[in-house]
Amino acid sequence: MLAQKSVIRETFMFGRQRAAQIGYENVFDYSLGNPSVPRPPQVTAAMLRLLAEQEPVELHGYCPSQGDPVFRAAVAKSLAARFQLPYTIDHIFPTTGAAGALSHALRAVTKPGDEVLTFAPYFPEYGPYVAGTGAVLRVVPAEPEAFQPDLETFAAMLNENTAAVLINTPNNPSGVVYSTPTLRRLADILREKSAAYGRPIYLVSDEPYREIVFDGVDAPYPAALYEHTLTCYSFSKSLSLPGERIGYVAVRPGCEGEDVLVDMMAQISRFTGHNCPPSIIQRACAECLEVTSELSVYQTNMKLLYAKLTELGFTVQKPGGTFYIFPKALEADAKAFCLKAREYDLLLVPGDSFGAPGYVRLAYCIDTEKVRRSLPAFEKLAAAYAR
Amino acid sequence: MLAQKSVIRETFMFGRQRAAQIGYENVFDYSLGNPSVPRPPQVTAAMLRLLAEQEPVELHGYCPSQGDPVFRAAVAKSLAARFQLPYTIDHIFPTTGAAGALSHALRAVTKPGDEVLTFAPYFPEYGPYVAGTGAVLRVVPAEPEAFQPDLETFAAMLNENTAAVLINTPNNPSGVVYSTPTLRRLADILREKSAAYGRPIYLVSDEPYREIVFDGVDAPYPAALYEHTLTCYSFSKSLSLPGERIGYVAVRPGCEGEDVLVDMMAQISRFTGHNCPPSIIQRACAECLEVTSELSVYQTNMKLLYAKLTELGFTVQKPGGTFYIFPKALEADAKAFCLKAREYDLLLVPGDSFGAPGYVRLAYCIDTEKVRRSLPAFEKLAAAYAR
Repeated sequence: MLAQKSVIRETFMFGRQRAAQIGYENVFDYSLGNPSVPRPPQVTAAMLRLLAEQEPVELHGYCPSQGDPVFRAAVAKSLAARFQLPYTIDHIFPTTGAAGALSHALRAVTKPGDEVLTFAPYFPEYGPYVAGTGAVLRVVPAEPEAFQPDLETFAAMLNENTAAVLINTPNNPSGVVYSTPTLRRLADILREKSAAYGRPIYLVSDEPYREIVFDGVDAPYPAALYEHTLTCYSFSKSLSLPGERIGYVAVRPGCEGEDVLVDMMAQISRFTGHNCPPSIIQRACAECLEVTSELSVYQTNMKLLYAKLTELGFTVQKPGGTFYIFPKALEADAKAFCLKAREYDLLLVPGDSFGAPGYVRLAYCIDTEKVRRSLPAFEKLAAAYAR
Repeated sequence: MLAQKSVIRETFMFGRQRAAQIGYENVFDYSLGNPSVPRPPQVTAAMLRLLAEQEPVELHGYCPSQGDPVFRAAVAKSLAARFQLPYTIDHIFPTTGAAGALSHALRAVTKPGDEVLTFAPYFPEYGPYVAGTGAVLRVVPAEPEAFQPDLETFAAMLNENTAAVLINTPNNPSGVVYSTPTLRRLADILREKSAAYGRPIYLVSDEPYREIVFDGVDAPYPAALYEHTLTCYSFSKSLSLPGERIGYVAVRPGCEGEDVLVDMMAQISRFTGHNCPPSIIQRACAECLEVTSELSVYQTNMKLLYAKLTELGFTVQKPGGTFYIFPKALEADAKAFCLKAREYDLLLVPGDSFGAPGYVRLAYCIDTEKVRRSLPAFEKLAAAYAR
């Protein structure tokens, strides 16, 4: 297990060491998806108010197993208004970020030996999340360059053992937003196969980047298109709070088992020592559901990088959201390419662990000024391959 | 799984409903171990300072997999000074409370099929924590009335499959502090059997009540007496922050595998979606390691209850710490006794799920004034059995 450390984390740690040598400002670290903009002022205000005014024993007390009722009710109300679906408090299970959400959702809808399908490219931590349940992750190969799900191959891979399908849109690492026609077709296939197997195949929809969608892009809400959906959300990106570990699972009204799934996740929690996200953060986020950090910087950064990469001849899909871009490496071996990039202090992550060898991920959640200063390094890197 | 809900939580929920009927002040709820005193002012000050002065992107960023270095270093320094053991940052793994600590420690030192031994009476959540790892919990029967571990039976139950021993002192639910001679003898047995089996048997020591020890009681630190110890701590009780989910595992210097256990726990975390406790709470607690909430109320409450219970003829061991007391019920069936107690709006928890049928737990982390007002209800309850 120790040999399987996250390549993203390792690149990040390398960057820290390099920064100690040449200065933080000279390392162009595109490795880690850590938001670069501060929490919104509303979060600060909510925290200060809770600390000043809320009775501390009540504020910091144990949550019920299903989570803080104030947070759950607020999330349900917000989702219901936004997506026109009758979410209630009983559909919402607060979790320690998307990691906690995915782990609980997957454990709730699978049993050991079941199969979970996902589409490459995909977030590598899906491997551990699924393995932790005892289920088996099967990956539908990526379809460059658009990186929309390959639904023909997907339909052929579905079988009697498929318990759930795990999707992520807007997508890490490609930045691609799955289109409405794609998701409608996905839903149709799931309904058809669910009917054939006599039980629902669940859709587990990982949506930490829901709020980071660029101008003119239509980002559909998967649960609106398929009833048996567990939506996994995190406030890590929208409120710039990744370290505070706060998110939720929203069980779609009408989902098979909607009356027991939240209770099941509360019970699952006892077996992993999860026991709810922090109470003060739940309370603060409950007051900030309709705000976000100043996210426009990510679009600015995307445009700079997309323009430069295309200018330099990279094969690259224009992101519709997130803070990632996923160009093709300039040699077949993306790992070798990333090592070469390090010579110019560009820290990129090879696509191999995302199920897309030959591509590299850039996380452009860094200062725009630093993105600008990194552009000559990309020029030098491309020139090294042009020689 | 849904049928195995915690009896503690169910009693607590009953209390909430009853409070809605007759008023919160009239329900004598001794069910839940939720601290009744506020967080210390130092925690508030630390939180306010972090929100005002700390760069937010850094403050709320993702922690390294092993946890926040500031918190880890501070905990190591504090433990080293207090217990004269050479803890370093590399021995400390921050967790979401004791639940997270125990889950990670047990997963790190067991494999599926292994046995974990504990001593009745014990915290019922040990069942799920151990079952979650795939190991099997075996319980050394309780020895009333002292409720010290029965080491003869324990030694006979140890076998080639025993991977770990799980203890909790000061003890929930008995309030008993395991004595130094008891722990020395326990350590001797473990050393002897470890030598016989050619591998160490780990001691997992659950210590959320370490700071709540009453006048004149000697509370030894188990890791000081046995080298292969993983100490599991929570700030839930000492700083009155149960909902904020903050604790740690401290791997004892000299423990077998001390160089890999924290890394192993960091990797285990990926498979359960744990991914570190909240970062702002880690930072705040790092500044408050040498303070506690005003804990003296628990001793005041204990003395009131112990005096009344003994006066009424209950068989009961005087607690050495915690905020629990564990008298013998006035009939053989503790569940029936607890239902009878509800007629007087006394909410007690039967000892059955703690592995000690016939006894009942009182969690006296409530206002002293309410403890006083509850004493006549105990008189009426005892009188009902005297008739």
